[in-house]
Amino acid sequence: MSSIRRPTIGVFDSGVGGLTVLRALLNRIPDADYLYFGDTARLPYGSKSAATVAHYAVGAVSYLQDQGAELLVIACNTATALALDEIKAGSHVEVIGVVEPGADAAAHASTKRSVVVIGTEATVASHAYRRALEAKGVAVREKACPLLVPLVEEGWTEHPVTEQVARIYLSEAFSEDSRDADVLLLGCTHYPLLKPLLRRIVPDHISIVDSAESTAQAVARQLQIDPLHTPNDPERRSVPRLKFYATDSAEKFRKMGTRFLGHPVEDVVHADLKE
Amino acid sequence: MSSIRRPTIGVFDSGVGGLTVLRALLNRIPDADYLYFGDTARLPYGSKSAATVAHYAVGAVSYLQDQGAELLVIACNTATALALDEIKAGSHVEVIGVVEPGADAAAHASTKRSVVVIGTEATVASHAYRRALEAKGVAVREKACPLLVPLVEEGWTEHPVTEQVARIYLSEAFSEDSRDADVLLLGCTHYPLLKPLLRRIVPDHISIVDSAESTAQAVARQLQIDPLHTPNDPERRSVPRLKFYATDSAEKFRKMGTRFLGHPVEDVVHADLKE
Repeated sequence: MSSIRRPTIGVFDSGVGGLTVLRALLNRIPDADYLYFGDTARLPYGSKSAATVAHYAVGAVSYLQDQGAELLVIACNTATALALDEIKAGSHVEVIGVVEPGADAAAHASTKRSVVVIGTEATVASHAYRRALEAKGVAVREKACPLLVPLVEEGWTEHPVTEQVARIYLSEAFSEDSRDADVLLLGCTHYPLLKPLLRRIVPDHISIVDSAESTAQAVARQLQIDPLHTPNDPERRSVPRLKFYATDSAEKFRKMGTRFLGHPVEDVVHADLKE
Repeated sequence: MSSIRRPTIGVFDSGVGGLTVLRALLNRIPDADYLYFGDTARLPYGSKSAATVAHYAVGAVSYLQDQGAELLVIACNTATALALDEIKAGSHVEVIGVVEPGADAAAHASTKRSVVVIGTEATVASHAYRRALEAKGVAVREKACPLLVPLVEEGWTEHPVTEQVARIYLSEAFSEDSRDADVLLLGCTHYPLLKPLLRRIVPDHISIVDSAESTAQAVARQLQIDPLHTPNDPERRSVPRLKFYATDSAEKFRKMGTRFLGHPVEDVVHADLKE
């Protein structure tokens, strides 16, 4: 049972990838309204510098607060990794990123205390996951996989080329010091769409963890929602209200977003963000 | 021999790809100063809408004019395809895009009057090459190849995965009506780096044409430079002055740019473009 009135949760991502986090939030916290901001005109963040990402993220998050967001979820791994402190400094509401909950879940899942993290170039270069996991006493190997996002966006989530690319990246990732790692942490919101393919590639004893579900749990904790409470009383359960803002074409967002959210994306408006 | 004093030529691209056009310009017109603008903070343009690309391009081109550009080369296929008219309307100097010169060269190279154009999603969706080639009485098949840019940026220009991806795209492109096409037009500035790989894949009777060289020729014509003149008199030949502006990190631009330009990229400054 929620201890506060129906909250308005702002979810920010560079594009449609964060919809995998929104999907987890909707499952966990349906009694809420959601404002989702996809900075599609300026994506991808994964290959950009920290200063640029911070500048974009702070602007987007400020926009979400202007629209009424009372809690902010930074669903973008790159923005969390590179700019969480700047975002928090520029916000007057609580901010939850995906790195800390993802690292938490990975640390709990690893009995060998050794985790491999895959993500974009910028996320890996920031070493945000490394810092978070090492602080929990877990050894980390980070590996940038820049081709996986375009492969997912091409729709090749079950394609032999994607499997070949993933095998190349993962054989590099699970080598040397990380040969004994027993967790693969998906440090990018696009990667959950590759979970079935990755599950076939990595050995059975390796757990695959993504940040979406653990981030949704962290948000529930923040809202003081009983972790065992599932709002299954149809009388009480209300339909979440969803509103989407995209800086590039609303139509393109609607089209691609549906694949990431798992159900139709409606009510998309174009957000014209001044820098 | 140039009929005008040493010109300052502005070259605009969404990123580093346009450096393949700059390289052709430097070979053809060394007696010039060059200002190159790479909108690296907001790349790639290839997956964005026409309105967004036009908005970005007009801002960038206005910046180049403020820096002293007396002639503008739109080295970005997507920006040319989607926004050439808007760029021309917003400029007080001559503007030359890559589509018309590329289409010209392809039309001349095709004895069968049938050309296949490959490019980004946005370039293909704009049908700019189709319009330009059909106006010359040439049949066209356009094929979007969204994975080729990230593969080039990953440095996999001779990788088996890239060869496999290119084979998939090209077998789709050279099918049905375009089975008899005898020219492959590279409608994206990243693709010249794949020329050796593509040359191995496509049959010998198919010519590979890229827009860089033909665009450099169009610029030389605009400057009324004698097409037969090669400035090989060491007394007269001066070293071109190059200055680079990047909207994302200057260091990243320097690093990746060198591969595209073919020699070291120096003198890069960060350009902070207000929208």
